[in-house]
Amino acid sequence: MRTTDGVLAANRRYYEAFETKDLDAMSDLWERSDRAICTHPGWATLEGWGPVAASFFALFQGGQQIQFVLTRERAIQVGDTAWVSLDENLLGDQGGVTVATINIFVRGSGPDGWQMVCHHGSVVQAGRNQG
Amino acid sequence: MRTTDGVLAANRRYYEAFETKDLDAMSDLWERSDRAICTHPGWATLEGWGPVAASFFALFQGGQQIQFVLTRERAIQVGDTAWVSLDENLLGDQGGVTVATINIFVRGSGPDGWQMVCHHGSVVQAGRNQG
Repeated sequence: MRTTDGVLAANRRYYEAFETKDLDAMSDLWERSDRAICTHPGWATLEGWGPVAASFFALFQGGQQIQFVLTRERAIQVGDTAWVSLDENLLGDQGGVTVATINIFVRGSGPDGWQMVCHHGSVVQAGRNQG
Repeated sequence: MRTTDGVLAANRRYYEAFETKDLDAMSDLWERSDRAICTHPGWATLEGWGPVAASFFALFQGGQQIQFVLTRERAIQVGDTAWVSLDENLLGDQGGVTVATINIFVRGSGPDGWQMVCHHGSVVQAGRNQG
């Protein structure tokens, strides 16, 4: 088992919870504290678990089903902190959208030993540098 | 001195280097390694110091002068890692733009004892949740 397997598993849980609109699973994954921050694509940064949870509740109420294909996943771990950079490829009615994303985790009592403390995603615009 | 003063100082250096188009200062601040990642607004994620440095070189060649006003700066430190969330308010000819940003640092030989390993900014779209 690689060192970063745990945090990569925690990272996948975020997308499973999102795809299944499972607010309990999302709540288990996140650190439910003031330092939880979340920036959905195009949104202002939400600070604290209350506003972050409310955003998932609102997003999950929407009728749209979102499926993620994750590419370029890369985890870096330094002590009790880790971050995963990846591309979320969103499959939807209007074709594909790629969301460049960084997720930060700290060691905790989450299901894989990690809790999410930061999610930040932004749409990659066509014609801009493709990495 | 608060615990997070060092990382907040390192964070400010990023914006000073950007405003003065100082590639040497930017290079001193960043961890010049494969784990350096950078997502400029609307861009795909650049991986590794080579591509990241090239992006700053290209941005600094542009004639446009950018001035940042930083708001909502908040630093979290966990051991040898820290991250700063903030809003970059860009002042330019076409009025203001707000870029929601997360910067990640690790302890290192940078001028304030921290090296940048991740920068991710995304434009806050008018009419979306304002945090």
